[in-house]
Amino acid sequence: MAPQKAVKKVVLAYSGGLDTSIILKWLQTTYGCEVVTFTADLGQGEELGPARDKALLLGIKPENIFMDDLRETFVKDYVFPMFRANAMYEGLYLLGTSIARPLIAKRQIEIAEQVGADAVSHGATGKGNDQVRFELSYYALKPDITIIAPWREWDLRSREQLIAFAEQHQIPIAKDKRGEAPFSVDANLLHASSEGKVLEDPAQEVPDYVYSRTDGPESAPDKATVITIDFKEGDPVGINGQAMSPATLLTKLNELGKINGIGRLDLVENRFVGMKSRGMYETPGGTILAMAHRAIESITLDRGAAHLKDEIMPKYAELIYNGFWFSPEREMLQALIDKSQEFVTGTVRLKLYKGNVITIGRESVYSLYDQDLVTFEEGAVAYDHRDAAGFIKLNALRLRTLGQRKKKLGL
Amino acid sequence: MAPQKAVKKVVLAYSGGLDTSIILKWLQTTYGCEVVTFTADLGQGEELGPARDKALLLGIKPENIFMDDLRETFVKDYVFPMFRANAMYEGLYLLGTSIARPLIAKRQIEIAEQVGADAVSHGATGKGNDQVRFELSYYALKPDITIIAPWREWDLRSREQLIAFAEQHQIPIAKDKRGEAPFSVDANLLHASSEGKVLEDPAQEVPDYVYSRTDGPESAPDKATVITIDFKEGDPVGINGQAMSPATLLTKLNELGKINGIGRLDLVENRFVGMKSRGMYETPGGTILAMAHRAIESITLDRGAAHLKDEIMPKYAELIYNGFWFSPEREMLQALIDKSQEFVTGTVRLKLYKGNVITIGRESVYSLYDQDLVTFEEGAVAYDHRDAAGFIKLNALRLRTLGQRKKKLGL
Amino acid sequence: MAPQKAVKKVVLAYSGGLDTSIILKWLQTTYGCEVVTFTADLGQGEELGPARDKALLLGIKPENIFMDDLRETFVKDYVFPMFRANAMYEGLYLLGTSIARPLIAKRQIEIAEQVGADAVSHGATGKGNDQVRFELSYYALKPDITIIAPWREWDLRSREQLIAFAEQHQIPIAKDKRGEAPFSVDANLLHASSEGKVLEDPAQEVPDYVYSRTDGPESAPDKATVITIDFKEGDPVGINGQAMSPATLLTKLNELGKINGIGRLDLVENRFVGMKSRGMYETPGGTILAMAHRAIESITLDRGAAHLKDEIMPKYAELIYNGFWFSPEREMLQALIDKSQEFVTGTVRLKLYKGNVITIGRESVYSLYDQDLVTFEEGAVAYDHRDAAGFIKLNALRLRTLGQRKKKLGL
Amino acid sequence: MAPQKAVKKVVLAYSGGLDTSIILKWLQTTYGCEVVTFTADLGQGEELGPARDKALLLGIKPENIFMDDLRETFVKDYVFPMFRANAMYEGLYLLGTSIARPLIAKRQIEIAEQVGADAVSHGATGKGNDQVRFELSYYALKPDITIIAPWREWDLRSREQLIAFAEQHQIPIAKDKRGEAPFSVDANLLHASSEGKVLEDPAQEVPDYVYSRTDGPESAPDKATVITIDFKEGDPVGINGQAMSPATLLTKLNELGKINGIGRLDLVENRFVGMKSRGMYETPGGTILAMAHRAIESITLDRGAAHLKDEIMPKYAELIYNGFWFSPEREMLQALIDKSQEFVTGTVRLKLYKGNVITIGRESVYSLYDQDLVTFEEGAVAYDHRDAAGFIKLNALRLRTLGQRKKKLGL
Repeated sequence: MAPQKAVKKVVLAYSGGLDTSIILKWLQTTYGCEVVTFTADLGQGEELGPARDKALLLGIKPENIFMDDLRETFVKDYVFPMFRANAMYEGLYLLGTSIARPLIAKRQIEIAEQVGADAVSHGATGKGNDQVRFELSYYALKPDITIIAPWREWDLRSREQLIAFAEQHQIPIAKDKRGEAPFSVDANLLHASSEGKVLEDPAQEVPDYVYSRTDGPESAPDKATVITIDFKEGDPVGINGQAMSPATLLTKLNELGKINGIGRLDLVENRFVGMKSRGMYETPGGTILAMAHRAIESITLDRGAAHLKDEIMPKYAELIYNGFWFSPEREMLQALIDKSQEFVTGTVRLKLYKGNVITIGRESVYSLYDQDLVTFEEGAVAYDHRDAAGFIKLNALRLRTLGQRKKKLGL
Repeated sequence: MAPQKAVKKVVLAYSGGLDTSIILKWLQTTYGCEVVTFTADLGQGEELGPARDKALLLGIKPENIFMDDLRETFVKDYVFPMFRANAMYEGLYLLGTSIARPLIAKRQIEIAEQVGADAVSHGATGKGNDQVRFELSYYALKPDITIIAPWREWDLRSREQLIAFAEQHQIPIAKDKRGEAPFSVDANLLHASSEGKVLEDPAQEVPDYVYSRTDGPESAPDKATVITIDFKEGDPVGINGQAMSPATLLTKLNELGKINGIGRLDLVENRFVGMKSRGMYETPGGTILAMAHRAIESITLDRGAAHLKDEIMPKYAELIYNGFWFSPEREMLQALIDKSQEFVTGTVRLKLYKGNVITIGRESVYSLYDQDLVTFEEGAVAYDHRDAAGFIKLNALRLRTLGQRKKKLGL
Repeated sequence: MAPQKAVKKVVLAYSGGLDTSIILKWLQTTYGCEVVTFTADLGQGEELGPARDKALLLGIKPENIFMDDLRETFVKDYVFPMFRANAMYEGLYLLGTSIARPLIAKRQIEIAEQVGADAVSHGATGKGNDQVRFELSYYALKPDITIIAPWREWDLRSREQLIAFAEQHQIPIAKDKRGEAPFSVDANLLHASSEGKVLEDPAQEVPDYVYSRTDGPESAPDKATVITIDFKEGDPVGINGQAMSPATLLTKLNELGKINGIGRLDLVENRFVGMKSRGMYETPGGTILAMAHRAIESITLDRGAAHLKDEIMPKYAELIYNGFWFSPEREMLQALIDKSQEFVTGTVRLKLYKGNVITIGRESVYSLYDQDLVTFEEGAVAYDHRDAAGFIKLNALRLRTLGQRKKKLGL
Repeated sequence: MAPQKAVKKVVLAYSGGLDTSIILKWLQTTYGCEVVTFTADLGQGEELGPARDKALLLGIKPENIFMDDLRETFVKDYVFPMFRANAMYEGLYLLGTSIARPLIAKRQIEIAEQVGADAVSHGATGKGNDQVRFELSYYALKPDITIIAPWREWDLRSREQLIAFAEQHQIPIAKDKRGEAPFSVDANLLHASSEGKVLEDPAQEVPDYVYSRTDGPESAPDKATVITIDFKEGDPVGINGQAMSPATLLTKLNELGKINGIGRLDLVENRFVGMKSRGMYETPGGTILAMAHRAIESITLDRGAAHLKDEIMPKYAELIYNGFWFSPEREMLQALIDKSQEFVTGTVRLKLYKGNVITIGRESVYSLYDQDLVTFEEGAVAYDHRDAAGFIKLNALRLRTLGQRKKKLGL
């Protein structure tokens, strides 16, 4: 295997798992370059310590090991802005994987600039969306960076070859990692996704053992949990009256969602790279949050603002799904969305019950649903039902004209 | 009360209830015109017989009493075309009331032309959307029609006055109709909606007694019901392998939804006439159908088609909500949507459980999720992961150029 | 004529012409209220002095006469933001009338609050868009304001009655104002529009005498005028290298456009109030500016940004045309547009010739059309034509899958 | 040069020029395959005979030489459907090159199936849009086709190498083809485009000698030409009252445009492959047609239909520009557009003068601009200006509510 380009130092998005450990070693042996590892805590539910140990074991110098707890940044600067848009890809998917990639890429590029690396690398495969999301972000942030995508470059074509490579390079292999995984998982504070192998036939139900983040609706408590979520300018800031940081709040919502069987989604989606793919998503807290955000908007957002948001949402969601977080058009849409959230402040009451997220109340000092608002001085009310006649007549005028044309022409 | 215009014969959308009976009498006494009643069965769950009896009792000539069972037409020509679009108003509302109005209006106009009536009338109030939906439809179909909207014209300002008017004109008053209803209801085969009075505070949970079409999730069976729905060219045609007519099928889905606690929605929405309104909707069968339609589309619709549909959906839903069913732009959007449904054929498997509609499988002879489809003669596969590199690079080119500009300018 | 509501003090948008003078008097006599006049210079090409004299003559107290030169504000805060969007209503109309109304309304409301007036009034007729634009703005800025729209209220039904009313109230009548005008005109620094009477048949060419702001292409010089326009962050800031204030610049462009026969438009448009209307617009400077702005964007704006702008433009233009300048959705769209203009800086060279505005050059330090930008360190170029193969293949994948489906099914 | 894949027979889009002659020979020598040539007359202004002679000279068997006059098909099935949409890419470009590619590709595939070829080839370079347009079309129509794109495959890296290859293979070289062309041209009945070399600096004016299809505005006659164009269901069918076939009509419009200096466009555009490009387009007839189509729509199309068309137009134009003619979403949009054209019938009068296309009249039996249409039986008119008050009030209601919120909160 000859390297495709000369590289001196590469920053690898490193999880500490077998696959990225193989990549680490492959980078060293193929490119003969210095490898810098970057491991982020985005709430995937794994300790960072073992990743450090493994990196050291594989010969990475301590000063080349970077670890960050990005949970607060992730939720505050990526998840929440996206939820302001009520973003759902293809009507249903809350974009849990898509939204994490730009942040990881951004930190990799920052580290590359800090340590003087000329390349970055990731462990995403050649058939998925993640390679696109990583690489579009890398290129947008540092256009002259070299990108190494091992899964597209190497000639390790099977699980056996990977394992052989690992053994050959003294990479420790956990027992349960020898065989092919029955499905692959991505996880962060917003969600866990599973796809591949046992999930490949979209006619077959997702087996129970695939779920990791949520209890099933059937095994959830028989009694509903009622909660309130407080919003401020479009973002959630508290649960049951208690103020919380973004990551703390999402963690808490995840717990509430999990035990109440909330947030499972079995989906066949269209990948940016052109094929369909079947995935299973668990987004317990996000599912609650999405419903709550729509509820608080329903009383604080004007119709014109709300409908405009709905109209541009599919495009916004598609941009994030496709990896264009760091694009001018995503930023322009974000400006539009953020502009609308100034008064999206108040409290939503929700019932969580066996998979259901039920809005049962919403209130706000900024509520536009307020009888008093349409009552003016001296008791005069803004709405006079006689106005409706004129309203209808002028709205009907063009339709009547069309009708007259038909009549005139005998159609 | 002087009539606003001279009218000889009017076709009234007549339910047989107290309010439209008062309108009937008010039309006779105020306009001195012949009243023709039209009562439709749209699956609201009431017999038509009593409406006929009441009309006769109120002096309507038998030849002036029109009754139609429109259930099949309603589902086939209005509900199903709308569901092809995955239409949801403000992200959540399945448009159950909105979609019935154009059909009622259309039949009224047809009857008006048949009997030579010069006017039509309806019982919708002056503050809601329904007056708009009725009247835009009337005007579109018969631009020179006279419309009488009693609630905007008369000076009956309170329940007491209405009751007094009824008593004065020997209109029978059911005991429970004397007082003000605690909320108002609209129902048809697709849904029941409730609004007003006890529902007016959006901070307060909907009381249990308001629900009429669905059992609560809590009282639904502890065991899930698994069903399949067969689709043909975008429309459902069978349940559990048994072919059914449109109305029969929706009726069956309503039963399944009802017992499994499916389809409740508590919503604050934006009315076309300008204010916010809180409503409670029960759409048991429609909720199942909406999820199933997305599922069958997920394997049979191409990404380009699916995303285009998602992008235009909010506008389509808004048009129906606002009453523009009979407008060129709704028909243009329908042409676009229908064009996409040619291959939306196949079967979806769903689990119904305590309020949840869970897609657990989908299959189709037209499935685009098919490994074979992307495998070509001689075993060559259409997807080569090395193609992804070029795909990403050209997609990134403009982002890199932007990045270079920043760099060049030292930004 | 009885007043429709009790009013103490009203701020009238007063031009000094016959019609608004009649309105002034009618307000005094009908409402018995104090009248405050507001006359603005928006570049309509008339002195304000005579309006003051006339107001005094009609009994308005000096402290109740307000006059403002709003030209700079008009261009800077209304015209330029709109041109950032490349806004054209129905593909062609540069919105010259529409954009002036919100500013006039805003000043009227400010004066109403300053002088403690409880009402505002305008001279727009009951069939046009301007009444809507004025009144939506009034209501948005001061929801409890009383609005008097004389043309919808009074019973002066003919020119004769108006003249009689004027004579009866000693309102001076210019000789040429006795008869009905052959068409009506609205003018400001951006444009002049003409409509009505001689223009009403859309099959007939606009007579030459209707034009007031532009020379005809045929009478323009035989030699082209070449100019440059400098832009900064989306707005024009100089002509031929000379910096100018917004109103000065637009005035200069108007002169250049006028002599070169630029900016005439004969249009049948769709009014918000429901009917079609034929108008003739002269927008000499604006037509030049629109072309120039697209030209500078063409080298400084990324494709994603440019296409997003094009997609939302029709909605933005419609909002302004319909009178929703002071709406959340217009402000949201403005935020999106403004976000895109950061680097829209540079110089455009144009040839003006007998009605044509021809872009012949554009340059910018922020140009994205720059070979160097896509050349990276060590001479490596970002674009490798082999990348195109992968790019095409992945873009084609879904189309190939569709093709395979057809083939498989023998379609 | 080793072939990238085994190919038996290839259908080449062959112009008869030097470049595609080199490709022809290169295919024979590199792939050792049988070459089938396809030469189409799309109105590029060249005889087909010489292409046949050249193909024979280069050893193509007579039965392998295909020549088609596609002008009528091109205009009727591609150009006119696109003009129904008023399609302009990036606000200005009439898509003359883009729209020709799918038709050429379609015929190539048809020939490939007829002669049993397993591959197709084209002469588009690796940096442009045309390779994408050709290949997406090929793949959509025949997903298992092999595509040979010589410009991306061969190692002929300079003009010198190309000429050497031609000499080596006895390909005749016209004298003026030895050196590098100062710009490259594409032409068909709709337009001619020029780009490259002398046009590469967007700050420099296009030199006069680049224009081939149009006279300059300055050299056009001093007297305007007035014409009428008749439309039927959205398509032009006659000029000055004389019925013409699609290609005849467009040819005639081209002549009229040419002599009147109409249809030049100097543009910096964004290519699908990611970079900006400067091109010069001459679309004389198309420019007239575009203006005329908008004019006939202005009186025959309802506002709802017209605005919906404007909203989706940018996406439609982008799809054609990017090469997605044979995609479900283009076909869906076409269905929407075509649905709107049923009554787009009538006559437009235009003045052509030194680069200007000026609409001076439009009439139609289907005109919606017709005072009679809004006048109903018994002289009652549909528009009552008092209706405007209600119309405005209900449109203002949400804005007033927003205003009240601000006031209540002291904002």
